[in-house]
Amino acid sequence: MEPELDPPGLGRAPRLVSRRRFLACAGAASFAGREIASALTLDHGDKMYGLIGKITAVEGQRDALAAILLEGTVDMPGCLGYVVATDPSDPNALWITEVWEDQASHQASLELPSVQEAIAKGRPLIAGFDQRVETTPIGGHGLGLASK
Amino acid sequence: MEPELDPPGLGRAPRLVSRRRFLACAGAASFAGREIASALTLDHGDKMYGLIGKITAVEGQRDALAAILLEGTVDMPGCLGYVVATDPSDPNALWITEVWEDQASHQASLELPSVQEAIAKGRPLIAGFDQRVETTPIGGHGLGLASK
Repeated sequence: MEPELDPPGLGRAPRLVSRRRFLACAGAASFAGREIASALTLDHGDKMYGLIGKITAVEGQRDALAAILLEGTVDMPGCLGYVVATDPSDPNALWITEVWEDQASHQASLELPSVQEAIAKGRPLIAGFDQRVETTPIGGHGLGLASK
Repeated sequence: MEPELDPPGLGRAPRLVSRRRFLACAGAASFAGREIASALTLDHGDKMYGLIGKITAVEGQRDALAAILLEGTVDMPGCLGYVVATDPSDPNALWITEVWEDQASHQASLELPSVQEAIAKGRPLIAGFDQRVETTPIGGHGLGLASK
């Protein structure tokens, strides 16, 4: 299966709910290893959902592709984190790391007009998907987390 | 070179500065591809610094290792993001994704007592480091970002 282009962002309404839940997971996990199992199934089994991907851009198009991904990642419900990074060892590569409230919210994001537009604009700039890993985030600390 | 165990967190004092800077980068990058080059060298060339790593735990010790990593990741200056995730395809694996204000802040974190303690406690539970990628984050959205 060919991985899809996948640019998300932060939804405005669910954001605070998401943060509370994320911190609840992190808190449960940090007490002891045996408590992580319950953190993984908080909210009636709706696990968080993560993606780690490496995309190779068409020669010379890396920065244009990054801009499209960043433009398409604003106000997406259920997205807890989305980071675009370059790779010092590969001038055409981008690494995308994502954290979603659950897999359903990620799936739903692919239908949003902003994401559809980013997919259409970004696809011609992509030479290939070199890595794509689905993960289950269980806790941690967030970019720009202003208070605990 | 063997990668080090690497558990960081959010520093209290630099947090707001970090967020402003992170958003400045994201904003610059989102206007157009050509502006990413300048976003990469904001603040006199101090690029953000990212790590993506896969750690394999000793059989049966994944959750205990995750708990140690999460415990050791609180209040670390310069850390903008640190997420611990399991891997549905590998019961012994953990994926760690990190975003730092710059490489120096990551390096400095390794000397903190909380990190030293996590390294000492976690090392016996680690079977190997399967992947470690250094990145240069250029923008995106953060876990638990309460406002823009």
